[in-house]
Amino acid sequence: MSLLNTALFADPELDALLDDNAHLAAIVHFEAMLASASASEGLVPDQAARAISDSLANVRLDTAALAAGLAKDGVVVPALVKALRAGLPEASRSYLHYGATSQDAIDTAWMLQLAQIVPMLQLRLGHISSTLDGLAVQFGRQRLMAHTRMQAALPITLADKLQGWQRIIDECSSGLTFAAKRALAVQLGGPVGNRASFEGKGDAIAARLAELLGLADAPAWHGNRVALCRLGAELAGLSGALGKLGTDIALMTQSEVGQAAISGGGGSSAMAHKNNPVEAEILVSLARHSAGNLGTLYQALVHENERSGAAWTLEWLTLPAIVRDAGSGLLVAQRLLGRLSFPAQDIG
Amino acid sequence: MSLLNTALFADPELDALLDDNAHLAAIVHFEAMLASASASEGLVPDQAARAISDSLANVRLDTAALAAGLAKDGVVVPALVKALRAGLPEASRSYLHYGATSQDAIDTAWMLQLAQIVPMLQLRLGHISSTLDGLAVQFGRQRLMAHTRMQAALPITLADKLQGWQRIIDECSSGLTFAAKRALAVQLGGPVGNRASFEGKGDAIAARLAELLGLADAPAWHGNRVALCRLGAELAGLSGALGKLGTDIALMTQSEVGQAAISGGGGSSAMAHKNNPVEAEILVSLARHSAGNLGTLYQALVHENERSGAAWTLEWLTLPAIVRDAGSGLLVAQRLLGRLSFPAQDIG
Amino acid sequence: MSLLNTALFADPELDALLDDNAHLAAIVHFEAMLASASASEGLVPDQAARAISDSLANVRLDTAALAAGLAKDGVVVPALVKALRAGLPEASRSYLHYGATSQDAIDTAWMLQLAQIVPMLQLRLGHISSTLDGLAVQFGRQRLMAHTRMQAALPITLADKLQGWQRIIDECSSGLTFAAKRALAVQLGGPVGNRASFEGKGDAIAARLAELLGLADAPAWHGNRVALCRLGAELAGLSGALGKLGTDIALMTQSEVGQAAISGGGGSSAMAHKNNPVEAEILVSLARHSAGNLGTLYQALVHENERSGAAWTLEWLTLPAIVRDAGSGLLVAQRLLGRLSFPAQDIG
Amino acid sequence: MSLLNTALFADPELDALLDDNAHLAAIVHFEAMLASASASEGLVPDQAARAISDSLANVRLDTAALAAGLAKDGVVVPALVKALRAGLPEASRSYLHYGATSQDAIDTAWMLQLAQIVPMLQLRLGHISSTLDGLAVQFGRQRLMAHTRMQAALPITLADKLQGWQRIIDECSSGLTFAAKRALAVQLGGPVGNRASFEGKGDAIAARLAELLGLADAPAWHGNRVALCRLGAELAGLSGALGKLGTDIALMTQSEVGQAAISGGGGSSAMAHKNNPVEAEILVSLARHSAGNLGTLYQALVHENERSGAAWTLEWLTLPAIVRDAGSGLLVAQRLLGRLSFPAQDIG
Repeated sequence: MSLLNTALFADPELDALLDDNAHLAAIVHFEAMLASASASEGLVPDQAARAISDSLANVRLDTAALAAGLAKDGVVVPALVKALRAGLPEASRSYLHYGATSQDAIDTAWMLQLAQIVPMLQLRLGHISSTLDGLAVQFGRQRLMAHTRMQAALPITLADKLQGWQRIIDECSSGLTFAAKRALAVQLGGPVGNRASFEGKGDAIAARLAELLGLADAPAWHGNRVALCRLGAELAGLSGALGKLGTDIALMTQSEVGQAAISGGGGSSAMAHKNNPVEAEILVSLARHSAGNLGTLYQALVHENERSGAAWTLEWLTLPAIVRDAGSGLLVAQRLLGRLSFPAQDIG
Repeated sequence: MSLLNTALFADPELDALLDDNAHLAAIVHFEAMLASASASEGLVPDQAARAISDSLANVRLDTAALAAGLAKDGVVVPALVKALRAGLPEASRSYLHYGATSQDAIDTAWMLQLAQIVPMLQLRLGHISSTLDGLAVQFGRQRLMAHTRMQAALPITLADKLQGWQRIIDECSSGLTFAAKRALAVQLGGPVGNRASFEGKGDAIAARLAELLGLADAPAWHGNRVALCRLGAELAGLSGALGKLGTDIALMTQSEVGQAAISGGGGSSAMAHKNNPVEAEILVSLARHSAGNLGTLYQALVHENERSGAAWTLEWLTLPAIVRDAGSGLLVAQRLLGRLSFPAQDIG
Repeated sequence: MSLLNTALFADPELDALLDDNAHLAAIVHFEAMLASASASEGLVPDQAARAISDSLANVRLDTAALAAGLAKDGVVVPALVKALRAGLPEASRSYLHYGATSQDAIDTAWMLQLAQIVPMLQLRLGHISSTLDGLAVQFGRQRLMAHTRMQAALPITLADKLQGWQRIIDECSSGLTFAAKRALAVQLGGPVGNRASFEGKGDAIAARLAELLGLADAPAWHGNRVALCRLGAELAGLSGALGKLGTDIALMTQSEVGQAAISGGGGSSAMAHKNNPVEAEILVSLARHSAGNLGTLYQALVHENERSGAAWTLEWLTLPAIVRDAGSGLLVAQRLLGRLSFPAQDIG
Repeated sequence: MSLLNTALFADPELDALLDDNAHLAAIVHFEAMLASASASEGLVPDQAARAISDSLANVRLDTAALAAGLAKDGVVVPALVKALRAGLPEASRSYLHYGATSQDAIDTAWMLQLAQIVPMLQLRLGHISSTLDGLAVQFGRQRLMAHTRMQAALPITLADKLQGWQRIIDECSSGLTFAAKRALAVQLGGPVGNRASFEGKGDAIAARLAELLGLADAPAWHGNRVALCRLGAELAGLSGALGKLGTDIALMTQSEVGQAAISGGGGSSAMAHKNNPVEAEILVSLARHSAGNLGTLYQALVHENERSGAAWTLEWLTLPAIVRDAGSGLLVAQRLLGRLSFPAQDIG
């Protein structure tokens, strides 16, 4: 439901990096840089590469026509390449998308998008970390009862509690760095993934293209989706970590427990006295949603032969959703932590 | 990605029954009929019920304001009730949403929406069944090699093959009928689910409300989500069944096998000779996506106490997606079957 | 870990119906009754059917040899049929397993096992229902605070709470009855599922066999796994329902809440004062485990052509685990409810 | 079903590292080394540490009594500590498990077990890599048709195909190394995870204990399960990778395709001419099973407060299963590759 999404899970900054326009722009950028890289290696005439670069810099796309092509071919690239070629001088047309296949364009485009998204998420992780630092300064020396297996255990300090959360956030950040470094690589394989269509210059073109795009160089990964899925795992892990914070806060704000208080929000249509920990609950929901999507994403590792339409489509039904959950979870968590306080406890 | 969704998974008919407008209209209808049912039982003055009914019939909602309320409260109902009351004469205001809670309105609204969606899906199942009948008339007597465990086994007829698909479709239809009958019930519980807020008349009001809304009467199911999840299972089962058809067709249309042919579509940006079984692959992707979402939906059965914000939100992150996959899968399957033919085989 | 399983999840009664011996015995029973049913229809000589029946009644199987055959063929039936034929008079040998295929034997055997398991689970559901009745008699009039969205809401009675649980149990029981009726059917299809190997008498033999085995008659469902998966959904729903009871009880027994108390158990190695709600937690774990397995089971609906080794194996990696969780969850829940009491609350 | 497991998924080498005996031995080892590390830091008298070390080196455990304790307490440690103390001189008893909690013992024990398992899996990955090398030497120059989206595309060489598989295996190996380095850490937190029970010497004891056990030093991770889940993701990724090999091989060995042949095995009870790619199918089943279990494992990231019984139990219902699938998948893959050959293709 879009209203629900808009209101509870809003993340316009991330949406702008994930949406159709961002994706199409990334594909167009890939095609322009591929022509340049191929020109560097002598596979494409310099003049054609320049013509392509100039034309693509100013291209206006007819989204409706692209959608019709997508519906027919299952991928948008054939229609997009046709449209881009129409804007080129005759002599340059065949050099656009030269040697490449749809998957090269689409996979690389997603990596370009993720290369912008991951640092944004890391920044948000950093904000949460700072907020936790601030809470520790303010509340760290207060004592509160720890709970193990849903039962009061022994007193700890809020510094203990907040440090526990901090370490989870840090672990997510480290894992995301590792996973992104391995996943954010150029895809260049040609029709069947062996770069034969680049006439012996595929490896050099891929290296140059990676440089131009700011992605890692790598062999074609058309059927090797392990690094991509791992990135999904880190992001689902991040949502899971936020779900741990959420469940802790929901438990701490229970009426009978009163270890934490959330200012503002959470009204009920029937009980005016209530202050529901809505954002804490949402973090739990997002964590469970992403865990489920992760399980589905890993089904896509079973990727048939040189390219699987079914597994590939499944990736894009699940990975963007995992990214989206992580992004808006970070915003929700930030909002929640900003409204959190910890009433002093009387625990002897 | 919206373009992808629009192009590959388009289902405008279903979207119109699932979107924000449909949901808000269903909530408004619930509130109007609740006032009527409560008036029938003497809990609300007839005049107030009429005023509510008149006002709600012509209400115009400010979606942006509702979204802001939703963001604050985690549910849209508090803001919506406030907006609806503002349009009522002073004396009727307190009778709107009288005795009810947000969950009553939202759960019942979804059931009203699903009560329109399920027959539409059944109709589509019927179309697929007819199309399979037609294919059986045309091709049923042809022989083809059966495959077990990915190996050629023994010859069967296309009638055998098509009848196998038909029985799967029929099984889905029977299960959906059973599940819908149990799930499509009015939700009326009041703040804590025991109908105490209806001053002893809750059962009678629920029965009358169910009648007015065309839903089944049932005790409040605020924490009893089994029937809802079962409906999700039937719909995921339906997508799984279509995925079986899809995988069969993708295997049958393999270049080396040639047991089936799909006319039109499936172009490649790099290999003009190819005819990719795009729709068959999409059916497999949707099946796997829905299976994953089903596993996540069942996580929401662990519903804390009298109402769980986390589990409830998780339902609405997954169930509409399952519904959507089933709906567009049926359209895709129908399109695919309409373009399918079976070349005669030479199998001795 | 077997000790963990043995100790926390012990269900010897169910294990005896699920284990290798039970499965092999069910296959042997299928083969004997298939010979009888085929004799009734004149496909197998009466004398051969009697010889088969006599021999199979006293057969001793060499499990190690069967395991070796299973490792080689991926299914146990080829080795088992060979072993069973070795004990038959020469003239009867070819009539054993006549017309049938491995899947006929194995699928039907599992249905025979489930036909014993489902009533046992229904009986356990009945016990839980009775225990809830007893608790309602004892504690029903006590008041306690309801909780919505993790916050104290308004007072209800324990009768309200217990009735809520009861309705969930009842819903599971109804769904299980429906699902079992559709799933517990004989499988008889022959090598490619069209009964051609039964020489025109397949339908009659299947009907007779169903009668002899106490299963429903049905067309071959070699590639139609919807009813089987639905049975899994009902059982995962049952575990989910028990998980709802478990999470409620874990929340109610929190030190600060004190709405419920569990006598005995739950010791800590470090904190002698603790009384952990171990069984309540286990119900939550089993619910989540089964939800996940359900999602995986539904992946197996994507069943290739006339028999998929991969999808079939996946069923048997997940469905028995779902059955097992439901069975031991019911035992754990029964133990937990038997130790539960509800301290009177002071809520004004 | 145990026979199925034994026969199709046998991995006795791994079982010996995962079973009850291995787990109990690892716990006992943890307790002995904890006493030593605590003695090094002066928290436990040297004499007591020596007595503990001597006694534990020769302990014989009564598994039945431990199981009874486990059933009562939900964890085995209270009963185990009691049993171990009974074998100690009176004066040393209180120094066993001093400052520690059940989770310290169990989590560290699992890490000790995994620290033996991961190198074994890496070794198996190495064997597969070598086998692929060997196949590339033998068959690499042969040409075969590549397949994209289930359709014949363009010719490649077997070197291309095998290199694609190799890179997937390599990616799994790299990821596993990273994940293991972060996950295989000592757990030492005491009852509520803040090491307060170690009287200011917790960090030093943990560091010394890590050294003694050959694990990484780390802050207590009682509620920080990210690294553990990541290890699960790498192992599920490994099974997914093997599933990709499996699905390729199953497609290549199709009767109509004939790009690969498997010698031996795969008999049918009904069709003597068949040679089913049983091991290839099993790899697909294991991949899907592990993907599902991974989704469930990530549900356990939502870990309540200082220790969640429910989430912790869920880890051990899923992670060992993921480990087991990876282990036996590697054995199955090795067997399969050893029997694989590639008939020369006539592709012009």
